[in-house]
Amino acid sequence: MTPIITAFEDSPDEGQGQARDMRVRWAFEEVGQPYDVRLVSFAAMKEPAHLALHPFGQIPTYEEDDLALFESGAIVLRIADTHPGLLPTNDAARARAIGWIFAALNTVEPPIVEHEAAEYLEADQPWQAEHMALVEKRIRTRLGELSLRLGDADWLDGDFSAGDLMMVMVLRRLNGSAILADHPTLAAYVRRGEARPAFRRAFDAQRAVFTRRHPDAGRD
Amino acid sequence: MTPIITAFEDSPDEGQGQARDMRVRWAFEEVGQPYDVRLVSFAAMKEPAHLALHPFGQIPTYEEDDLALFESGAIVLRIADTHPGLLPTNDAARARAIGWIFAALNTVEPPIVEHEAAEYLEADQPWQAEHMALVEKRIRTRLGELSLRLGDADWLDGDFSAGDLMMVMVLRRLNGSAILADHPTLAAYVRRGEARPAFRRAFDAQRAVFTRRHPDAGRD
Repeated sequence: MTPIITAFEDSPDEGQGQARDMRVRWAFEEVGQPYDVRLVSFAAMKEPAHLALHPFGQIPTYEEDDLALFESGAIVLRIADTHPGLLPTNDAARARAIGWIFAALNTVEPPIVEHEAAEYLEADQPWQAEHMALVEKRIRTRLGELSLRLGDADWLDGDFSAGDLMMVMVLRRLNGSAILADHPTLAAYVRRGEARPAFRRAFDAQRAVFTRRHPDAGRD
Repeated sequence: MTPIITAFEDSPDEGQGQARDMRVRWAFEEVGQPYDVRLVSFAAMKEPAHLALHPFGQIPTYEEDDLALFESGAIVLRIADTHPGLLPTNDAARARAIGWIFAALNTVEPPIVEHEAAEYLEADQPWQAEHMALVEKRIRTRLGELSLRLGDADWLDGDFSAGDLMMVMVLRRLNGSAILADHPTLAAYVRRGEARPAFRRAFDAQRAVFTRRHPDAGRD
């Protein structure tokens, strides 16, 4: 069967390619695997049918034959594991590429998500700016370290891999922010990822969901 | 060769089994793979030799033959991938177990780490308590959802797997906190994990590093 993923019916990112189904769409496009999308509303995400697929009531989910998965990292790894193109065939290089998926999700992303959470959850707090500045400092430490490791290479470890896909997705949450712009090596790395034809196809497909629903906002 | 991991020379957790080498030690013990440990100081973790192994200057790292890895999730998955015992042999069940590793690290752990970060990084802030209360609420939401999924099962999906290992490690960061105690299903799940002989061996080995360095503090 064609795999089915879930995505926001009305994404809070307004078509900027930030919702996490983008990671999965991009992986499918890189390996040339067609997929179907089922859109879910915020209300439906918290209902039993969706919670059976995703215990934390989020998107994306992934269904193929007798397998259902959640967590974008697990889904991208599954796609990479079952199709050529996103992981090296050399055993050690494959393990390192998978390592970068974890580094993106467990070391680089958490303070970035925290910065976003502070932005919308603490808007009423007089200490919001002070807190965001502390979190920003932690993000900058991580980005400095990552920038040193990347150096002048195109990708984190040899050819483009699922590890780069995830790291680019995590870093581009900072698109438009000085935090990313102040690390030109990483900003260029993100642009390199975004320039891949598979990224563009995934981005356009995700954006089309938004523009169909908001035809006026869709003009850019 | 016997794999070598790195661990804190002087762990900030004071022998409570919270430092992340514990995850890797536990995985080794579950599959019966001997390992060596190289202790590193905080200063050495930020020096070039260690940064070559771990670009973010942390522990644990993992070295075997021609492979070096960092990120506890990647290392545990590597151990599980190359030894029987931590992942189901059925393909779909294996993918779901790996999914739980990602859920532990990218969905459940981040707010818990944030709560800890607020505790030590924001101690001078008059708004620390308010911020921690907001983060606690996010943790409680996740724990409520996880508790519902676990139900009255012993483990998250069939037999104990690397996904349970990681989830237990993430949840037990809350040991001693009312946040965990208020979710008795999960508190019992953590105790089930901690009761495994492999966990005990890993815990004792990690604790021995601390008690050798702090013989007085080691008495309990």
